[in-house]
Amino acid sequence: MKNQYSFIITIVFVFLSVSLQAQIKKIEPPFWWSGMQKTELQLMVYGDNISSLTPEIDGLEIKEVKKTENPNYLFVTIETENASAKNYTINFKKGEKIVDSKEYALKSRRENSANRKGFDSSDMIYLVMPDRFANGDPTNDSNSALTEKANREEQGDRHGGDIDGIIQHLDYIENLGATAIWSTPLCEDNDAKYSYHTYAQSDVYKIDARYGTNEDYKKLGSELHKREMKLIMDYVVNHWGVEHWMIKDLPTYDWIHQFPGYAQTNYRMSTQMDPNASEIDYKMCMDGWFVKTMPDLNQQNPLVLNYLIQNAIWWIEYANLDGFRVDTYSYNDKEGVATWTKAIMDEYPNFNIVGEIWLHDQAQIAYWQKDSKVGAIQNYNTHLPSVMDFTLHDAVTSVFNEENPSWDKGTIQLYENFVNDFLYPDIDNILVFAENHDTGRINQIYENIEDYKLVMTLMATVRGIPQLYYGSEIGMKGDKGKGDGDIRRDFPGGWEGDSNNAFLSSGRTATQNEYFNFTSKLFNWRKNKKVIHSGKTTQYLPENEVYVYFRSNENQTVMVVVNNSSENRSLDLSRFKENLKEAKQGKDIISEKNFSLEEKLEIAGKTSYIIEVL
Amino acid sequence: MKNQYSFIITIVFVFLSVSLQAQIKKIEPPFWWSGMQKTELQLMVYGDNISSLTPEIDGLEIKEVKKTENPNYLFVTIETENASAKNYTINFKKGEKIVDSKEYALKSRRENSANRKGFDSSDMIYLVMPDRFANGDPTNDSNSALTEKANREEQGDRHGGDIDGIIQHLDYIENLGATAIWSTPLCEDNDAKYSYHTYAQSDVYKIDARYGTNEDYKKLGSELHKREMKLIMDYVVNHWGVEHWMIKDLPTYDWIHQFPGYAQTNYRMSTQMDPNASEIDYKMCMDGWFVKTMPDLNQQNPLVLNYLIQNAIWWIEYANLDGFRVDTYSYNDKEGVATWTKAIMDEYPNFNIVGEIWLHDQAQIAYWQKDSKVGAIQNYNTHLPSVMDFTLHDAVTSVFNEENPSWDKGTIQLYENFVNDFLYPDIDNILVFAENHDTGRINQIYENIEDYKLVMTLMATVRGIPQLYYGSEIGMKGDKGKGDGDIRRDFPGGWEGDSNNAFLSSGRTATQNEYFNFTSKLFNWRKNKKVIHSGKTTQYLPENEVYVYFRSNENQTVMVVVNNSSENRSLDLSRFKENLKEAKQGKDIISEKNFSLEEKLEIAGKTSYIIEVL
Repeated sequence: MKNQYSFIITIVFVFLSVSLQAQIKKIEPPFWWSGMQKTELQLMVYGDNISSLTPEIDGLEIKEVKKTENPNYLFVTIETENASAKNYTINFKKGEKIVDSKEYALKSRRENSANRKGFDSSDMIYLVMPDRFANGDPTNDSNSALTEKANREEQGDRHGGDIDGIIQHLDYIENLGATAIWSTPLCEDNDAKYSYHTYAQSDVYKIDARYGTNEDYKKLGSELHKREMKLIMDYVVNHWGVEHWMIKDLPTYDWIHQFPGYAQTNYRMSTQMDPNASEIDYKMCMDGWFVKTMPDLNQQNPLVLNYLIQNAIWWIEYANLDGFRVDTYSYNDKEGVATWTKAIMDEYPNFNIVGEIWLHDQAQIAYWQKDSKVGAIQNYNTHLPSVMDFTLHDAVTSVFNEENPSWDKGTIQLYENFVNDFLYPDIDNILVFAENHDTGRINQIYENIEDYKLVMTLMATVRGIPQLYYGSEIGMKGDKGKGDGDIRRDFPGGWEGDSNNAFLSSGRTATQNEYFNFTSKLFNWRKNKKVIHSGKTTQYLPENEVYVYFRSNENQTVMVVVNNSSENRSLDLSRFKENLKEAKQGKDIISEKNFSLEEKLEIAGKTSYIIEVL
Repeated sequence: MKNQYSFIITIVFVFLSVSLQAQIKKIEPPFWWSGMQKTELQLMVYGDNISSLTPEIDGLEIKEVKKTENPNYLFVTIETENASAKNYTINFKKGEKIVDSKEYALKSRRENSANRKGFDSSDMIYLVMPDRFANGDPTNDSNSALTEKANREEQGDRHGGDIDGIIQHLDYIENLGATAIWSTPLCEDNDAKYSYHTYAQSDVYKIDARYGTNEDYKKLGSELHKREMKLIMDYVVNHWGVEHWMIKDLPTYDWIHQFPGYAQTNYRMSTQMDPNASEIDYKMCMDGWFVKTMPDLNQQNPLVLNYLIQNAIWWIEYANLDGFRVDTYSYNDKEGVATWTKAIMDEYPNFNIVGEIWLHDQAQIAYWQKDSKVGAIQNYNTHLPSVMDFTLHDAVTSVFNEENPSWDKGTIQLYENFVNDFLYPDIDNILVFAENHDTGRINQIYENIEDYKLVMTLMATVRGIPQLYYGSEIGMKGDKGKGDGDIRRDFPGGWEGDSNNAFLSSGRTATQNEYFNFTSKLFNWRKNKKVIHSGKTTQYLPENEVYVYFRSNENQTVMVVVNNSSENRSLDLSRFKENLKEAKQGKDIISEKNFSLEEKLEIAGKTSYIIEVL
C-alpha cells in the first residue's frame, strides 16, 4: 500500500511539473529593442502562481525581480545596455530546475528611430473613428473571441469599419490635403456593448481583431510614410476597460483606484490647479473613474507607470508612429502623467504628443503645455509638447451665427482668443479644430456652407496644427444632443452597397463636392506654406464683424479677411499699412482673383479671402 | 520830439519790467518736504514768457533747468538731500537782475510717513461719489470761478454733495463696518457739463471748490484716522480734462497724445498683452483719448511722468493718504504707468494702490499685479500692489438669478473664479466688489434682499479686500441701462429736506433697516477676523447649487455655506471632514444660532451661513 501511494504521489508531482512548465502565459512588452535611450526594461511576467519562480537570462543582467501580492505576477527588470539585438532565452527556475522557458527578442531599431520628427504645424491632421470610416474587410466585422458583434443598424453598436478601410482610402485623405491621420483607439476593447469608441481597452498590446491585426496597423503607418504622411496614435493612459485581462486579475490592489467600490470622477479638471481645492475634490477628479467601464489606473504605483511608459514606447517603435494624441490627459495622476510624458520625450526628443485638456480657460490649458510659465507658478511641468485650443473651438462654434454682435459677442471672440497666445510656451504646437468625435458637428452648428468656409479659412490659416474631423469635408452633420452616435455617423461610401460614395468625386453630390473642393483646395495650398506653419501673426481688431489678420515671415505675407457679417464690406487698407507696406497687389487663393491692395478692398457678406501679397 | 519819444520808451520799458517781476504765476508742486526718499524734485514753473529767466535758490542746488518749446514754462530740478525744512527763496533772474522771487517751502514730514501702511484685506472700503452722497455745505454748491452750477433736477448735473457731507456722516459709515473710504475724484473738474464725476480734472493740485478746499480734504483724512479708518484717493493718471490749465497752454506738443486731431481709444485693453496685436491697435488703446473731454497724457515724456509722480506723492504726504485707487490703469502708457507706480511704492513701501483693470479674464487681470508671473512672460512688472476682481464681479452679478443651473452656469461660476487664484501673485491684496460707480447696482440686478444677503456673505468672507458701493447697504437701486446717473443717485438724507433720511435708523424704512442691519452686522463681525483677512481658503465643488467654503488659520475655522437654490438643502457634513476635523458645534454669526456639525446641516433656500467652528 505504501508503495502504491507513493506511486500516485509521484504521478501527481510529475503532472504538476508538466503544468508548471507551461505556466508563463504572457510576457509584456512581448519584445523590445536594443539601443534604447533608457536601457532598463521591466518585463511583466504573468502565469498561474509563477511568483515563486526565479528568472534567468543568458547574456542579460537581471537587476531586480519584484513580486506583488498576486502570485500570478513577476516584474523582472533587465538591463539592455550594450545588449545585441537577438533572441534571448528566459529560464524560469524553481530551485535548480527550469520549469518554463520563453524566448525574448531584442530587435534592431529602425535607422534614426530615436530622432523621429513628430507631427507639427506643417501638418493637417485628419481625425477618423475607424469603426465609422470604412469597412475595408467585411470578414473581420465580428470575431468569435470578442463579445460585441457587428450591427450597423444601431448607432451605438459596432459598424465594421477597420484599418483596411483607412488604408484603402489614403488617396482620398491625401487629396483632401491631410498629411497625418489620428485614428481614435484601435487596441482591443472587449466591452460587451458600446465598444466601438474603443476607449475601454482590454489589451493594450493588441489591435482589436475587428479592426485588423498589429501588422495591419504597422502597415497603415508604412503606407502613410510612403506618402510622406504621418500616423498619430490615440493613447489612453488614464484608464483601461473593465474587460482588460489585468483588471480581472489585478497585480496589486492599488493597480487601479478603489474606494472601495465604484466612485466616479467629478470631471472638474480645474480642481487640478485650484490652490483652494479641497483634497477630496482634487483627488476625486484625478482618481475617480471616468465611467463605470473604465477603471482608473493608479500611476502613483511605479509598476503601473512603467507598464504604461513601456507600452507607449513599444507602439512608437513597433508601428513607427509620428505622434500620440492622449485621451483625458488632465484626469490622470498629475505627477504620474508628467513622468509618463517625460519618459517618452526623453526617448524621442523630436516626437510630438498632444494632450486632450478640455478646459475653457486659456491659462488653465496653457498650464499643461511643456515648460509652461503658468504651470511653473505651481512648479508643475507636464513635458507635454502640445495641447488643444479648446477656447478657439468654443469661439468658432458660436461666432458665425451670433445674431447680436456686441462688445464681447461675435467676431471679437476670435480676436480675443488669440490675445492669450502669450500664455502658451509654444503657440505653434497647439491643435486647432472646429470639432472632434466628442463635440457637435460643425455642419450641424452651421447649416450654410458659407459659414463652414469661414471656419475652414480660420483652421487653415491661424497658428497651430489644424485638425479636421472625418466627414465634415463633405458636409456631414451630426447633433451631439442626439447622442454620440449621431456625431459619429458612417462615412458614406465606406460600406459596400452605400448608395452615396463620397470618397469619389463622381460619387459625391454637388453639395458634397462643393464642401470637398473648398476644403481640399485650402489644405493643399497650406501644405508648403511656411508662412502659415510658422509665420508671425498680426491681428487687427474686428470692425463691423470683419476680422483681418496677417501671417508673415521673411519671404511672404498672407492677408486673411473673414467677413462674418451678411453685408458686403469695404475695407480701408491704409489701416493695415504696417503689414501691407508698399504692396500693390495680392491674389486670393480661394477665388484665384487678383486684388489691388492700394486703397480699398471690397468683400461680400459671409465671405473670406486668403490673399497672398504679391 | 526825440526826448519825448525816449521818455515814452523808458516808460514802456519800466512798465515791462514791472510786469516781468510779477510773471511767475505758478510753481508746482506748490511745496514739498524735506527728507523724502527721492531727493530730486522737479519744479514746474509757469508764467508768461519766463523761459528766458534763470532761477536761483539760496541753500538748494539747482541740478537742471529744462526749457520746452513753450516759453511760458521752466522745469527746474533741485536737489533736496540734507535740505532743512524751511522756506526758501527762488529768485528768477534776467542776467544779473532779479525779475521775480517766490517763496518755496520744504516742510517737515509726519513721523513715520514713509512707512505708512496702506489699506489691506483687514479693511472694508466704502465707495462714495461725493457729489451724490451728502451736501454738508450748501454754500459751496456753485462757485463763481467754476462753470457748472448745481442743479439737482438733472441726473447728469452737479447735485451739491461735498467733503463736509462725508465728514458729517462718518459715524454712519463707521457703524456700517467700513474701515476705509474711497471717494471718486475730488480735484477740480471745470468741464461745462457733466463734471460731477470729476474724472476730467482741470487742476490736480486743488480740490474742486464745490466739494470744499484742500484743507477740507486733509481734514477728512484726519477725521478718518481718529477713528482708525483710512482714506483712499481716486487718482487719474491717464488723462486730464480739456479745461486743465496746462492743456490750454501745453508745455510741449507731446504733453498729450495728438494724432493730430481727436482720436479715441479703442477700449480693447487686451491689446496691451496681445503678442499678435497690430501696432496701431496697441497704440490706439493706450494713446487714444478715453472721451473727447479727456486729453490723454503722454507718460513717455519724462516731464509729464515726473509731474504725475510728484503730484501723487504730494497728495499722499499732504492729505496723509492710505492708498490710491487708480482710474483706467490699463489704458495708460504701459511703461509709464509702471514707472509711476514704482516711484510711489519706492517712496512708500507699505502703501497700497489698487488699479482699475476692467478685464474679464483672470490671466489678463493678474498680469497687472506686482511681480506677476503672467506679466513676467512678457517681462512686464507694473509694481501695482492690488488689482480688482472683475471676474468675481461678473460671476456674482449673474449666478444668483441663474434660472437654469448647468455644468458651467450657476454657483459653479463662483467656484471657478477662485480656481484661478493661483495666477495672482498676491491674492489677499485683490479688491472684491459686487458693483461700483460704473456698473449696474446689485440691488437692481437682484431685487430680493435674500440675494443681496448671499452676495454680501461672499463679499465679507472671500479672500481679498471687500468694497461696498454707497447706498447698497440700504437697498438703493440703479439701472446702468438708464445711464450713469441712475446708478449714482443721491443718498437719501444727504440733502436738507430729504423726506427719507437713511443715515439714521429712525429715518430708514423697515426694508432699508433690514438691508443696513444685515450689512452692518456682517462687516462689523469681519473687522477683527484675521481668519477672514488672511486665512487659507478651501472650497468644495458646489452640489445642488449649494456652495461651501472654509477660511481657516491656526486659531480659527469659519465655514461659509451659500444656498443659491430656492429649496431647502441638507448637507452631509462628512464631505467636509478635512476642514471640520473633530468639530462638534458651530455658531452662525448671521442668525446667531448654534449648529451641530457632526452629521447633517440643514439650510433653507436662498440662505447663507457663516459658521464659526467652535
